[in-house]
Amino acid sequence: MSQPNNSVAVLGAAGFTGKEILRILAAHPSLSLVHITSDKYAGKTLSESFPELPRQPGKELTFQTHDAVVPQGAFVLMATPNEVSMARVPELVQRGHRVVDLSGAFRLHDRARFLEYYKLEHTAFDLMQQAAFGIPELFKEKIQSARLVANPGCFPTGVIIPLSRLAAFQADILGISIDAKSGVSGAGGRTEDGGFSYTSVYENFRAYKILGHQHWPEIVEYGAPDLEDRIVFTPHLLPLFRGILSTITVFWKSQAPDLHAIFNKLDHPFVRVLPTPEEVQLNRVQHTNYLDIGLRSRGKQTVIVTALDNLVKGAAGQAIQNLNLMAGIQETTGLV
Amino acid sequence: MSQPNNSVAVLGAAGFTGKEILRILAAHPSLSLVHITSDKYAGKTLSESFPELPRQPGKELTFQTHDAVVPQGAFVLMATPNEVSMARVPELVQRGHRVVDLSGAFRLHDRARFLEYYKLEHTAFDLMQQAAFGIPELFKEKIQSARLVANPGCFPTGVIIPLSRLAAFQADILGISIDAKSGVSGAGGRTEDGGFSYTSVYENFRAYKILGHQHWPEIVEYGAPDLEDRIVFTPHLLPLFRGILSTITVFWKSQAPDLHAIFNKLDHPFVRVLPTPEEVQLNRVQHTNYLDIGLRSRGKQTVIVTALDNLVKGAAGQAIQNLNLMAGIQETTGLV
Amino acid sequence: MSQPNNSVAVLGAAGFTGKEILRILAAHPSLSLVHITSDKYAGKTLSESFPELPRQPGKELTFQTHDAVVPQGAFVLMATPNEVSMARVPELVQRGHRVVDLSGAFRLHDRARFLEYYKLEHTAFDLMQQAAFGIPELFKEKIQSARLVANPGCFPTGVIIPLSRLAAFQADILGISIDAKSGVSGAGGRTEDGGFSYTSVYENFRAYKILGHQHWPEIVEYGAPDLEDRIVFTPHLLPLFRGILSTITVFWKSQAPDLHAIFNKLDHPFVRVLPTPEEVQLNRVQHTNYLDIGLRSRGKQTVIVTALDNLVKGAAGQAIQNLNLMAGIQETTGLV
Amino acid sequence: MSQPNNSVAVLGAAGFTGKEILRILAAHPSLSLVHITSDKYAGKTLSESFPELPRQPGKELTFQTHDAVVPQGAFVLMATPNEVSMARVPELVQRGHRVVDLSGAFRLHDRARFLEYYKLEHTAFDLMQQAAFGIPELFKEKIQSARLVANPGCFPTGVIIPLSRLAAFQADILGISIDAKSGVSGAGGRTEDGGFSYTSVYENFRAYKILGHQHWPEIVEYGAPDLEDRIVFTPHLLPLFRGILSTITVFWKSQAPDLHAIFNKLDHPFVRVLPTPEEVQLNRVQHTNYLDIGLRSRGKQTVIVTALDNLVKGAAGQAIQNLNLMAGIQETTGLV
Repeated sequence: MSQPNNSVAVLGAAGFTGKEILRILAAHPSLSLVHITSDKYAGKTLSESFPELPRQPGKELTFQTHDAVVPQGAFVLMATPNEVSMARVPELVQRGHRVVDLSGAFRLHDRARFLEYYKLEHTAFDLMQQAAFGIPELFKEKIQSARLVANPGCFPTGVIIPLSRLAAFQADILGISIDAKSGVSGAGGRTEDGGFSYTSVYENFRAYKILGHQHWPEIVEYGAPDLEDRIVFTPHLLPLFRGILSTITVFWKSQAPDLHAIFNKLDHPFVRVLPTPEEVQLNRVQHTNYLDIGLRSRGKQTVIVTALDNLVKGAAGQAIQNLNLMAGIQETTGLV
Repeated sequence: MSQPNNSVAVLGAAGFTGKEILRILAAHPSLSLVHITSDKYAGKTLSESFPELPRQPGKELTFQTHDAVVPQGAFVLMATPNEVSMARVPELVQRGHRVVDLSGAFRLHDRARFLEYYKLEHTAFDLMQQAAFGIPELFKEKIQSARLVANPGCFPTGVIIPLSRLAAFQADILGISIDAKSGVSGAGGRTEDGGFSYTSVYENFRAYKILGHQHWPEIVEYGAPDLEDRIVFTPHLLPLFRGILSTITVFWKSQAPDLHAIFNKLDHPFVRVLPTPEEVQLNRVQHTNYLDIGLRSRGKQTVIVTALDNLVKGAAGQAIQNLNLMAGIQETTGLV
Repeated sequence: MSQPNNSVAVLGAAGFTGKEILRILAAHPSLSLVHITSDKYAGKTLSESFPELPRQPGKELTFQTHDAVVPQGAFVLMATPNEVSMARVPELVQRGHRVVDLSGAFRLHDRARFLEYYKLEHTAFDLMQQAAFGIPELFKEKIQSARLVANPGCFPTGVIIPLSRLAAFQADILGISIDAKSGVSGAGGRTEDGGFSYTSVYENFRAYKILGHQHWPEIVEYGAPDLEDRIVFTPHLLPLFRGILSTITVFWKSQAPDLHAIFNKLDHPFVRVLPTPEEVQLNRVQHTNYLDIGLRSRGKQTVIVTALDNLVKGAAGQAIQNLNLMAGIQETTGLV
Repeated sequence: MSQPNNSVAVLGAAGFTGKEILRILAAHPSLSLVHITSDKYAGKTLSESFPELPRQPGKELTFQTHDAVVPQGAFVLMATPNEVSMARVPELVQRGHRVVDLSGAFRLHDRARFLEYYKLEHTAFDLMQQAAFGIPELFKEKIQSARLVANPGCFPTGVIIPLSRLAAFQADILGISIDAKSGVSGAGGRTEDGGFSYTSVYENFRAYKILGHQHWPEIVEYGAPDLEDRIVFTPHLLPLFRGILSTITVFWKSQAPDLHAIFNKLDHPFVRVLPTPEEVQLNRVQHTNYLDIGLRSRGKQTVIVTALDNLVKGAAGQAIQNLNLMAGIQETTGLV
């Protein structure tokens, strides 16, 4: 095997996120899928289970169970539930695998908060010290050498990147309201079998987990640590399949600073700052790895609107972006 | 005619709002439709134009043009554009008609703001002094005797009623973010012919008129006049037909007051305070005249969620509720 | 009680159909709801369970279980599963109640077919002889005096009425293809709790129960008994909530007869024959009791398109239409 | 230029179909896009106009107008209106280009029918003799050497392939009903700007161009020429974006033949015969080049259900499949 470092295993490859990872890897020129697991599809071939994915002539894989042995040296993408990630990641890292974990298990550094928001006793919390938080636009160098990358939640990516531009201004801010709206594929409807009933979503709209969503501590820790008692995050469920749009309202102590200059300095291949916030919309980012941002200020307030595809930049695409960095290849490889 | 005070004319009876008015009147036990206008359907009968409306045996009306003479003594509901309302309302009031106007022409008392937000020179601004603002839960007595009622915009109703409960607390508030999401029938897609294209709405979501929507001055004037430089209103377009859900985030100077007691005192037939804000959702209010409200506080913030049907409590239903009061009949008559 | 014959009990009042019955009865001027059952809501009041239904001041009902005693003399509407209808209808009829049953239990006269299509041994098949088939446009007199009316399935109503116009031509027909498409509320998604998942319906379309749907024998028995080996019925699931559109293609042995004259003779208050089949569409019949029909012939073929609201003319509305006839009041009372 | 035969020009690259062509070509390993035209985007770069398409580092193209000179030797894909194709194809072929035309201009061999169904006088009808009909599963060899390929309409592909399996049985057939349902992107809503309004499609369904759609003569010529007076084609508009499902009902003179064996012999890389017709559904073929087929017979009838993505196998994907054959590369290259 000439490129042992570029083989990839995907654990939990059957949900919406796992499927998106498989779709990206199928067309990736440098990374090679060698191992897939799914408790649901164990024993079936990939093409039987997902005939809609691109063909891989001569490379038919069969789904294993989550506890099957991962091929030596392979990168591991974990699209598994929190409990499975907590249980398996320590051992995989120990065996020398470099891991990108898409669960919430390794994102937070506050143990009490993890317990409060995830309702789980953490069994491998010390691994947090080794984990890089997987937003390449903010933590590129740490990701490049990380043994473990904690891929962010779907909501936080679209919030933390713009909040990071306000870091120097935290003392001037009275409060930040984050009103986020997600399609069904991101809002807990992760499996095709279960999830929301048609009649509870169609021609309907609602907020959920108000003042108690598990992405709030993640947003605070990485986006605005000084403002933790001044940040409100309210997620909502949209009657559509993919995409998250977040409306971030900032209340300033006095006149809003000129943020356009600051945001226009954002120079990352997957971040686009649009001329107006009204141009930010889901159908410009769906099926891409882009994060779109627009903003407007008036008096002592600023409204920032961001949009991303929760399955791509909010999950699978960002995971591959991280993997590209870890593998030492071009950050954008294989991504749209 | 035995009940001259209960005959009703509807000007502009062909858009989504006009049709909803016709639907409610068709089943109304005390009000009697006697005159309808529509530039689009002029010359056609009501049942030809809207075969889906309830039958009115022996009572076939024909659409007139907007400038046709309204029968003496009839109440007038104006579901007309701002310009048509400005032009015709003064004359109708002069001729003794009592009018409910659903346009934006007679809602604001600040002439400069009207010009700024409506881009129209007002030709009958003095009539504003006679107008009652048409939220019965707040201005019932004034409405009962009004010659002219300015029916509120679809967004403001769901915001002003909860904000009115915070009137005594305005000095304790740092800022209020109002993030409102509307179905297509309320967001400018008022005519069946034009409006949004399918592919621009389906599987899409976006904000519009950020920091510049014409309902903002209405919300400020009637909802929180002391906080005008601290209120942000951001409307969004949902991929569905009817309903508005508003998420109102209040930032307090210190610990949030206990609002449940204050909101539970709301005792109006069409306002329901639900146990939790997550229960507030569009499919509980669609096709009804209800405004649903739920809220939760944590630390120095409160999140209030409200929902209503933009065509009913946000327009036609509230207009009939006002008309009931003006006609001296039970406020809830003919409404669900 | 001054109008003992106009009191109504609704058994199984909690599904989509039951709710639609309650909605119609709430506004019905002559029929009075006196008893409601639901295994799901038993013990709760109607307004607690369905706050979106019209208010009935001073008339609060509480849901009973299905086996509760029905008030003497009340008409009974059964919106219950086949098994419950089979079990309770004989006893109710015996006790003197006149019943409209919306299940499939009493529609077919061929016992073998009932077993084949419903997978149930019928325990009260002799009652079939007393049952009228509940399409008022075809069986009005029988319904008026019936003790038991079997309300048709949602698909058959839109097929049997047009096929009945072809009765005299059966010998000239080579085959009839009925391609029917239903919204989720009619296609088995009858309960709000269960039913289809959002991601299995949204942006999707499929056929189901091909050459084996339980409405096929009903269509054959009442619509075209001589053509039973020449009628194909294929139902499909639409990504929308309410409405059924059926496309009926007739292959004639020779040139198609002139059917417009024959169809234009249809003179029923809830049947509309439109000028062209392209005008027949769901949003003209939703929330109404209308059946719309349009047709076109060319050479040796005819295409007939029909549309109805599966919850109204396809279920609850037609049931009330039948009840009106049984109660000796105007057929259209309380219906749109 | 080392591979002169593998450069591709796309004329009319801005509609839904054009965009899909660009998407496929962006990831195609052997074909190279060198020229794009669009009257709408002329003068703008590709990445400005379609930021959601994959990046092509170092290969930025600018849209030309339709009449710009096509680079020597390039294959030409025409995603232009019928009139533009009629006007430009003769000249392009004359100049030595090999062309795949996605319009309807070169599909029919019956001049009278072209005039009847397209309402256009054909100005280059003699070119029809050189054109291959672009269904690779049926006309592979002719396509490989063709100067001009007429890519089929979106509906015909899903009908002609299954009908071709019945060719030997035409004399045993009494009639064929083809009931086809298309998403908005295929049913005439070809441009993002215009097209259908949201409120005319959402929660609605209807048939259109009954007994008069321009794809009927195409289906007859290539699918069942002996049955032209016995084939009915009825298209419908679905409230979704992409996909066509066709329900084909065959009436046999006597017992239906065993078709499973015949269909299972279909051995083409993009045709899948599924075990049951109920498994054929849009979300298994969307974003792929597959045509899925399922069927069931009972007595003297057969129901065949087929599904494809109208933008891929129904247009852009099939065009690339044809181009692959013309360029002498693997038929499946660059296609999912």
